[in-house]
Amino acid sequence: MEVIKTVGVVGAGVIGASWTALFLYKGFKVKVYDPYPIDEAVFKKRISANLNDLLALDQNAEPSYSQQDVLLHLEIFNNLKDAVSDVDFIQENAPERLDVKQQLYQEITAYCPEHTIIASSSSGLKVSDFQKEAQHPERILLGHPFNPPHLLPLVEIVGGNLTDPQILKQASEFYKQLGKNPIVLNKEVKGHVANRLQAALWREAFSLVEQGVCSAEDIDVAITSGPGLRWALFGPYINMQLANQKGFKEAIHHLGPPMTEWWNDMHAFQHSDETTELLEAQTNQLLTQYKDIDLYQTRDKGLVDILKLRQQLKLD
Amino acid sequence: MEVIKTVGVVGAGVIGASWTALFLYKGFKVKVYDPYPIDEAVFKKRISANLNDLLALDQNAEPSYSQQDVLLHLEIFNNLKDAVSDVDFIQENAPERLDVKQQLYQEITAYCPEHTIIASSSSGLKVSDFQKEAQHPERILLGHPFNPPHLLPLVEIVGGNLTDPQILKQASEFYKQLGKNPIVLNKEVKGHVANRLQAALWREAFSLVEQGVCSAEDIDVAITSGPGLRWALFGPYINMQLANQKGFKEAIHHLGPPMTEWWNDMHAFQHSDETTELLEAQTNQLLTQYKDIDLYQTRDKGLVDILKLRQQLKLD
Repeated sequence: MEVIKTVGVVGAGVIGASWTALFLYKGFKVKVYDPYPIDEAVFKKRISANLNDLLALDQNAEPSYSQQDVLLHLEIFNNLKDAVSDVDFIQENAPERLDVKQQLYQEITAYCPEHTIIASSSSGLKVSDFQKEAQHPERILLGHPFNPPHLLPLVEIVGGNLTDPQILKQASEFYKQLGKNPIVLNKEVKGHVANRLQAALWREAFSLVEQGVCSAEDIDVAITSGPGLRWALFGPYINMQLANQKGFKEAIHHLGPPMTEWWNDMHAFQHSDETTELLEAQTNQLLTQYKDIDLYQTRDKGLVDILKLRQQLKLD
Repeated sequence: MEVIKTVGVVGAGVIGASWTALFLYKGFKVKVYDPYPIDEAVFKKRISANLNDLLALDQNAEPSYSQQDVLLHLEIFNNLKDAVSDVDFIQENAPERLDVKQQLYQEITAYCPEHTIIASSSSGLKVSDFQKEAQHPERILLGHPFNPPHLLPLVEIVGGNLTDPQILKQASEFYKQLGKNPIVLNKEVKGHVANRLQAALWREAFSLVEQGVCSAEDIDVAITSGPGLRWALFGPYINMQLANQKGFKEAIHHLGPPMTEWWNDMHAFQHSDETTELLEAQTNQLLTQYKDIDLYQTRDKGLVDILKLRQQLKLD
């Protein structure tokens, strides 16, 4: 594997800007491409805000660190070839359309060096479906972050049918070097892992409101005053382990039968214009409670603080 | 409503001990009952640990506060009648068996004053199914906490068919006075709200490992490095709102179709001896990573810190 010095970021939306800030912060040269003209002032403002988050998170930050120095390593392009012709790693953040990705990967691999590793941020598509027609499809993999990518440590890695397993290892090492917590899946499934887990929760969250059991506000309180607090510390398996003093098996022994009843009682919620209208109205009602705070800023400040807390507790 | 001064706690297990500490900390006299002999030394040690958590959480704690003073307000009984004959509020934490609860509620209501409100911590049973044969069933409701009850603010409130709606309001006010965030459900469903949300997540978490997509460790990393961090700050509805700059409706417009594909691809995991063995083995493997920390202590310290953080962010 070539040493990675320069990173290409394809797609300069919110996700692309977040990745860009992270790569810059970690000392890489970054070449950003978008097919639409990038408003440099807006883009750099977003990068600056993300860099501030990273500085707040970084316990070992050097005081001499300056944003201006960092931003000198950023180049912005409206031409794909110029952006990727000498990068060692590419993070692609194009729209979630299979035809767009198929076309894009043919172009990227026609222009980039042969050693370049190319990771897709795709939240739901399978790499197997868009790597086929590319040159050297063995270098293409999924590297799916979680929003906001510069803060959340998760990166889901999985190869398509034609991906070289060595490339998965190299990508995993690279993400670790960035301070991420990558997981490497054994096989491709729609929505990968974290989005499926999230979608399972959303389905019941939508269903309970649709069935009139409670309001959207009740659901959000139920999570943020209940299991959501624990999920910032431990995942579903350790939480099940802790649900019984004797551990996981005994917890399942007691919780399994009622849980099966709850599963059997769940409705298979489906989106429709009517349900979206109902759930949106409930969300708008809930939003009135947050009118005095900036939700994005509060989320990102909270994430920084929880990540620091996890470090103190030696959980990361 | 009579002013609540004395609280009865029925069932002195982990949940009962947690409730007891909270009631004591908030200045109430507490009478604890268990049908099995209570080891006072063990029970009081558990109460002390819980009181220390509450003190750590309480920004307004008075320095003159002494655990010994607080523990003077605790009485322990092995006779139900003595424990409940002059209490104003009862928190019941008996085993999750319908026949046990039916019998118990007949006895409690035969012995306690007429004005007493009686809340059940039942995690899955319906109040309608165990209030019928009780005297004054209108005073019986669900007051379901989340483990550990002294720390997690959620209390799920719902009445059975025979519960007086006024009693639900009074119970909600009482829990708020304790510093809890109660939600009042519109109707009874199995598993209430938070346990159903949790069970939906667990189902997919178990399924993905059973299907060989990833390990239990990967699942837990996916949550604690991804959406779990956000769920400590905002629930599913606000997170969906934040998933798109234009808000909830636009987020559903983009995420709805792929999410439906993920839902349709999910397996209906069912517990069996084989799956429990597989998942337990994976959990044991995951536990080796935590061998240097006390999981319960880490969880409770983490919960205290996240709750403080939520206060600072003005989210609670």
